[in-house]
Amino acid sequence: MTESPFLRDVPAAQARTAWRAACAAAGCPPRLPAVTVSLEDAVGRVTAVPVWATRSSPPFDAAGMDGIAVRAADTVGAGETTPVHLGPDDYDVVDTGDPLPAGRDAVVMREHVHDVEGVAELRAAVPPYGHVRSIGEDVSAAELLLPEGHRLRPFDVAAAAAAGATQLSVRRRPVVVVLPTGDEVRPVGSATGPGEILDTNSLMLAAQARELGCEARCLPIEPDDPGRITAAARAAVAGADLLILVAGSSAGRDDHTGRVVAEAGVLAVHGVAVRPGHPVVLGAIDGTPVLGAPGYPVSAALTFEIFAAPLLAELEGAAPRRRPRTRARLARKLASPVGMDDWVRVRLGRVGGTVVATPLPRGAGVLTSLVRADGLLVVPAGLEGHHPGEEVDVELLRGLDEVERTIVVIGSHDLVLDLAASALRAADPGITLASSNVGSLGGLVAVRDGLCHLAGSHLLDPDTGAYTLPYVDRILAGHDVAVVRLVHRDQGLLVARGNPLAVSGIDDLARPDLRYVNRQRGAGTRVLLDAELRRREIRSDEVAGYQREEHTHLAVAAAVAAGRADCGLGILAAARPFGLDFVPVAREPYDLVVGAGALDDPLLAPLWALLDSADFRAAVGALGGYSTEEMGRRIR
Amino acid sequence: MTESPFLRDVPAAQARTAWRAACAAAGCPPRLPAVTVSLEDAVGRVTAVPVWATRSSPPFDAAGMDGIAVRAADTVGAGETTPVHLGPDDYDVVDTGDPLPAGRDAVVMREHVHDVEGVAELRAAVPPYGHVRSIGEDVSAAELLLPEGHRLRPFDVAAAAAAGATQLSVRRRPVVVVLPTGDEVRPVGSATGPGEILDTNSLMLAAQARELGCEARCLPIEPDDPGRITAAARAAVAGADLLILVAGSSAGRDDHTGRVVAEAGVLAVHGVAVRPGHPVVLGAIDGTPVLGAPGYPVSAALTFEIFAAPLLAELEGAAPRRRPRTRARLARKLASPVGMDDWVRVRLGRVGGTVVATPLPRGAGVLTSLVRADGLLVVPAGLEGHHPGEEVDVELLRGLDEVERTIVVIGSHDLVLDLAASALRAADPGITLASSNVGSLGGLVAVRDGLCHLAGSHLLDPDTGAYTLPYVDRILAGHDVAVVRLVHRDQGLLVARGNPLAVSGIDDLARPDLRYVNRQRGAGTRVLLDAELRRREIRSDEVAGYQREEHTHLAVAAAVAAGRADCGLGILAAARPFGLDFVPVAREPYDLVVGAGALDDPLLAPLWALLDSADFRAAVGALGGYSTEEMGRRIR
Repeated sequence: MTESPFLRDVPAAQARTAWRAACAAAGCPPRLPAVTVSLEDAVGRVTAVPVWATRSSPPFDAAGMDGIAVRAADTVGAGETTPVHLGPDDYDVVDTGDPLPAGRDAVVMREHVHDVEGVAELRAAVPPYGHVRSIGEDVSAAELLLPEGHRLRPFDVAAAAAAGATQLSVRRRPVVVVLPTGDEVRPVGSATGPGEILDTNSLMLAAQARELGCEARCLPIEPDDPGRITAAARAAVAGADLLILVAGSSAGRDDHTGRVVAEAGVLAVHGVAVRPGHPVVLGAIDGTPVLGAPGYPVSAALTFEIFAAPLLAELEGAAPRRRPRTRARLARKLASPVGMDDWVRVRLGRVGGTVVATPLPRGAGVLTSLVRADGLLVVPAGLEGHHPGEEVDVELLRGLDEVERTIVVIGSHDLVLDLAASALRAADPGITLASSNVGSLGGLVAVRDGLCHLAGSHLLDPDTGAYTLPYVDRILAGHDVAVVRLVHRDQGLLVARGNPLAVSGIDDLARPDLRYVNRQRGAGTRVLLDAELRRREIRSDEVAGYQREEHTHLAVAAAVAAGRADCGLGILAAARPFGLDFVPVAREPYDLVVGAGALDDPLLAPLWALLDSADFRAAVGALGGYSTEEMGRRIR
Repeated sequence: MTESPFLRDVPAAQARTAWRAACAAAGCPPRLPAVTVSLEDAVGRVTAVPVWATRSSPPFDAAGMDGIAVRAADTVGAGETTPVHLGPDDYDVVDTGDPLPAGRDAVVMREHVHDVEGVAELRAAVPPYGHVRSIGEDVSAAELLLPEGHRLRPFDVAAAAAAGATQLSVRRRPVVVVLPTGDEVRPVGSATGPGEILDTNSLMLAAQARELGCEARCLPIEPDDPGRITAAARAAVAGADLLILVAGSSAGRDDHTGRVVAEAGVLAVHGVAVRPGHPVVLGAIDGTPVLGAPGYPVSAALTFEIFAAPLLAELEGAAPRRRPRTRARLARKLASPVGMDDWVRVRLGRVGGTVVATPLPRGAGVLTSLVRADGLLVVPAGLEGHHPGEEVDVELLRGLDEVERTIVVIGSHDLVLDLAASALRAADPGITLASSNVGSLGGLVAVRDGLCHLAGSHLLDPDTGAYTLPYVDRILAGHDVAVVRLVHRDQGLLVARGNPLAVSGIDDLARPDLRYVNRQRGAGTRVLLDAELRRREIRSDEVAGYQREEHTHLAVAAAVAAGRADCGLGILAAARPFGLDFVPVAREPYDLVVGAGALDDPLLAPLWALLDSADFRAAVGALGGYSTEEMGRRIR
């Protein structure tokens, strides 16, 4: 292997240019070959040559109305008091679309003809070519109908048919082959052992390619053996227009891919100034472009968008498809690494007339950040980030109309909100309830800053024993907010089934043999824990695991179920699906704090109706650990 | 047949509601049944039930970095001058993604570990759970991953796989059956006789349905025989979730469809306050919704969008897909019928920093108006139209990024512009050159009003014999414009092959046996004709057919070729494809008038480069009747 020079850590645009140049030098064809397909199969494909009309449409002068065809000159002088009469030889009855009979040059609407025993009486003259659809009105033979490089839509193909086409010359569909690698990677559907992960990337990348109209094929997973990967890659490129080599999940596995590409072909770029997606590899093997995608799923998905999608469009000779964009106000400060384009997933919602963007978790492994995202915000390499409230440009992952029908909930996490989201959607597919879990305190701040319609909150004031309202008074003083009770719910310690360590309550948390798993700062459950500890004069550093923070009840339950912790404070509804035992600590109210104006916003009406419905209350009851007695009651 | 009441000429929203109610009453299922499909097949489909995670991802606490896994407590006190040393039993080497070994609760990055003969030296303490990806960081078991009614994207399906799904419950694809009718309608690909038209509607409607993810099937064309249509419709609904009955092209054919639907099932709506698309029929037969689409292609296409698309989304339980929108400045006055939603096709381009919308021809038969459209502008029923320059809301048919890379040409029509459009696109699929043919004079006015980058112009000043510049002085006085020569071209009389009527020149136009076909007012060719007539003192009313106006050279040629006229003034390049003969009249310059700022706009740079290219000049020369000697020369 001879080390040839390649680019490292360059901006995405430079990487794309270098890749394109390397592909050209390696003999990759710039465009896919043209193929002739039926009109039916042409929709969605890209024209390989311009489409010129070979037939005019309509192919004849035609009546534009139902009525009679006449010679306009015969009607000159006709008026209300001076009607003109045309005998049966001087007109023809025509329907819309009928060819204009020879010798006729105008049509009179049926409604304007008085038929007197076969003689047509006209009370107005008609201009020549009145109500006549000229030959070629739609398209004229020899006219350029569609340029080369045009992605065909249904009406394009229909117009081509009307203009005489019976088949069309389009680019062949690009063939994308995905080659997953990694010792620890198992096919989707397998049982995974410790340290093993599922190959969700191949499924996703192939689907992304198919979404762009490509044929896509996934190869079996290759272990981390450079010889085997090289052989598999060499075999794969023969039938591919783009080979995507997916690295395993470890850092440094891209070095692997880089070496394989350099050895089997030409390595153009290794590492781009993009986050996530930095360890991307770009090159070519045997005249086929190769993209080395990182193993982290968000990196893999974005790498496809940033590098594969433009290449595939270019192979088809078409403009790359771009998502629509919108302007949005950033919900909070966003720090970003200088020197890298930072692709931030955001939730969007229209609150108080402004579209607000709330950044989602940024880890390259958090695929749900893409699932829950409504848009992508790119912080360019030259920027250190954005201030809260700054207006930013967001690429839309969902339609803006869907965004506008989204109830934005920021605050504490509760399963009842998930249940409500499902129920609202089932009743009206246009409605979304999107909740971001930042804890109760964060929710109240979001309401204050106009970033959400609602905040779920269950904040205990240790001094008074009252919930939420004291915090509303403090944080939302002077703001016009309402508070609506959602549920009462049981909080307790989640412990392994059978409670093997015999945890009896908060007092036990000082036991050195117990590993606790905590919630993040600002979470109501954390506030509850701290109050309970203070009441018992237990210091936080006496609680082993106090520093381990999870962001949801379910994450706490998962940690306990996996044996990574012995107990954690959470709700009964989170214990159940994991088969955990539950040691009750408190019954607390969980409320919705409603931002100014949102209470009467028609967008939220279906939610209030839902809280009144017996079916929904029954469904909440079935979760366990909830009382719905006060559901929907306005407490402020 | 019993006449039951139905709605007539109601607004679209009311029509949809009435249709939905009628369908429900007729026993049409509100949702399609759920089917279980593989993850691969689930992309693009709509979830029939919520997707809950059954597995956490990652399924274990994992190293977030390559390095060593330690017990955080063992590192307390480590600092630059007080290193902590861990023996081989006190740490494990881990790669990113590896499960955290039992007893370890933090990871130290490889770069921060000094390995001294198997003893790891740390110069900083690490916090518990530092560089650890918690179990469930991405998704936690029992978490709601996706709601019901969600259209699955590639990363949704990958996340579902990571969360334990191996298949998904989605709605069955809707089946759309298209039944074309009409005595005059012939299958696409047939030779058509006089009065016959091609069935492009079935092709288009089926493609529109497939674009929405439906299965679509087209039935054979039924003649205008109510009995046969009724029998075919009854047979078709058995296997359909939506039947589209396409009427023939005549006005009044919808009455036909209305009767068929009323007789075979229930007629809910006949006629909506929408233009084009007014004669729509909505009803149900045997528990299947039926849409009667008008035969005019633009009406048929829009009817699908306005009525079929929302119904199909509802059957899938998903939000209807909506196109992105933009604000645009209207190029000219737009009059609109009160009482009807008016769907106007517009071209869009960014000129001088503003997106400008230019309305296209509005005839329901002009399918190319949809092909050439970049957007749809709906003038609501309550409005009489819009003033020129008014800001309007436009639904985008092309991406805004494509619109922004569109060179907008308004003015005279010339085939060289078509050729340039094709050549620019072939070189860079992102570029569009869009020309609207309004004649030379209209082009200069468009430049003046900032509605286009360029105007094609060839206006003869009869007093001086000079071309274009005198008009520029008059219309664009005080405007900073440039004028660039495109070509010289031959104008002449287009006559049937062999010149059977022995037309020798303009003098002959006064011959009573000659039928002339004219160009529209403001066209340079019309100005040329008028000047030639004046010079000979021939009055326009002496020219038979002077009133018949066509908008392009090709349309004139088509009229002559079809025998509807005997001659018309036009360019040689238009005569050739129709096999017409050409009687030369004049050689004239054809110039591009370039709006303020557009000359140096990077968007236009590829056009200027093209005019310099020998290949392009050769291609223009091959059209015939052009001289490219001065191509690209700036004459002002």
